[in-house]
Amino acid sequence: MSKPLLQIALDSLSLEKAVADAKVAEKTVDIIEVGTILACAEGMKAVKTLRALHPDHILVCDLKTTDGGAILAKMAFESGADWLTVSAAAHPATKAACKKVADDFNAANPDLKVKKEIQIEIYGNWTFEDAQEWVDLGVKQAIYHRSRDAELAGKGWTAEDIEKMQKLADLGLELSITGGIVPQEIHLFKEITNAKVFIAGRALVGEKGEETALAIRAEIDKYWA
Amino acid sequence: MSKPLLQIALDSLSLEKAVADAKVAEKTVDIIEVGTILACAEGMKAVKTLRALHPDHILVCDLKTTDGGAILAKMAFESGADWLTVSAAAHPATKAACKKVADDFNAANPDLKVKKEIQIEIYGNWTFEDAQEWVDLGVKQAIYHRSRDAELAGKGWTAEDIEKMQKLADLGLELSITGGIVPQEIHLFKEITNAKVFIAGRALVGEKGEETALAIRAEIDKYWA
Repeated sequence: MSKPLLQIALDSLSLEKAVADAKVAEKTVDIIEVGTILACAEGMKAVKTLRALHPDHILVCDLKTTDGGAILAKMAFESGADWLTVSAAAHPATKAACKKVADDFNAANPDLKVKKEIQIEIYGNWTFEDAQEWVDLGVKQAIYHRSRDAELAGKGWTAEDIEKMQKLADLGLELSITGGIVPQEIHLFKEITNAKVFIAGRALVGEKGEETALAIRAEIDKYWA
Repeated sequence: MSKPLLQIALDSLSLEKAVADAKVAEKTVDIIEVGTILACAEGMKAVKTLRALHPDHILVCDLKTTDGGAILAKMAFESGADWLTVSAAAHPATKAACKKVADDFNAANPDLKVKKEIQIEIYGNWTFEDAQEWVDLGVKQAIYHRSRDAELAGKGWTAEDIEKMQKLADLGLELSITGGIVPQEIHLFKEITNAKVFIAGRALVGEKGEETALAIRAEIDKYWA
């Protein structure tokens, strides 16, 4: 089990703020994410700009793709995204379309440092049978989280969350974990095999951002060899 | 039961094409939609530009909002959208956050010609109990469709689709219907009370766009008094 990576989600309303936040975070994170809010505010210009500024980071485009999979995936990957999020609620044909665009892109570019991948972002009423379908489609990654709005409503991580994550890991999915990630809660996830990425947003920006990022990294180092 | 409206979904990858398509369609449609693809490609600039060009049309922003509801709703409404789509898969707190932003906006602007509203876009594993929750939240509109990718995979409208739509209408929801809408299939929906909008995209652009729009309108006139 390799050490989980750290991802910053950029969810500002302007590209100017996003590039500033990314610059502060670039030394402490492995992955930069154009969050849904930023993508909806600024469009693919945000992905292209962050790709240009951070050629060596993994770049995630968080569109939570729900339909129009082939077009959105092509657009995001061509704009420079390495990984694209796809909503668990999307029709299976949409997930398959996104996966095919990634596979075709990888086949046409065998020297890519980071392969194009889709990540199933878990929302709505889902089942482990659905998750098995994602695996059967060849999807390697899923994103498990508290919704931002649930988090704002004060909903904490539960034993049920941890159990579900482990069941997803048992199916073979690598997990990104998000939703109010803070250093003092990293230990909650230490037993989950296949914990691949921790995603934080606002916690990693502003004055205390770097300090928080280093604290999360220290916790990761404590629990993962 | 009032006569259904006609909506064009603009799903081009560039704002330049979108404004051209909207200009061609403006006389034959009631509602202009910044589709998900266009919104992800160009950001809120697309909403602001189309609002400026078409002040008298209802403007829909199709973000399929799945999280971060308060921020995305505020952004879309302030950019000029009248209606915002929210994914059925979003956490109830996200739907409530979007609804509250719309309500607050309406309360602060009592003279709005078109009230801000959210539309639940039906994706994923949903139940009629979920739909009742949307109604209980005060949501008036839902969007029922074949997924674009399902449509591309050749999946047609079924009796089950019609039955589900009528059950949603029975709950009190006004329905927008989309997914490969063509004139010769409008009759399929004639029995559905609360059919509020037909949405078409590619069918309404290009050389034959106006002809198709008028043909859809003629069918609407035939079946709705």
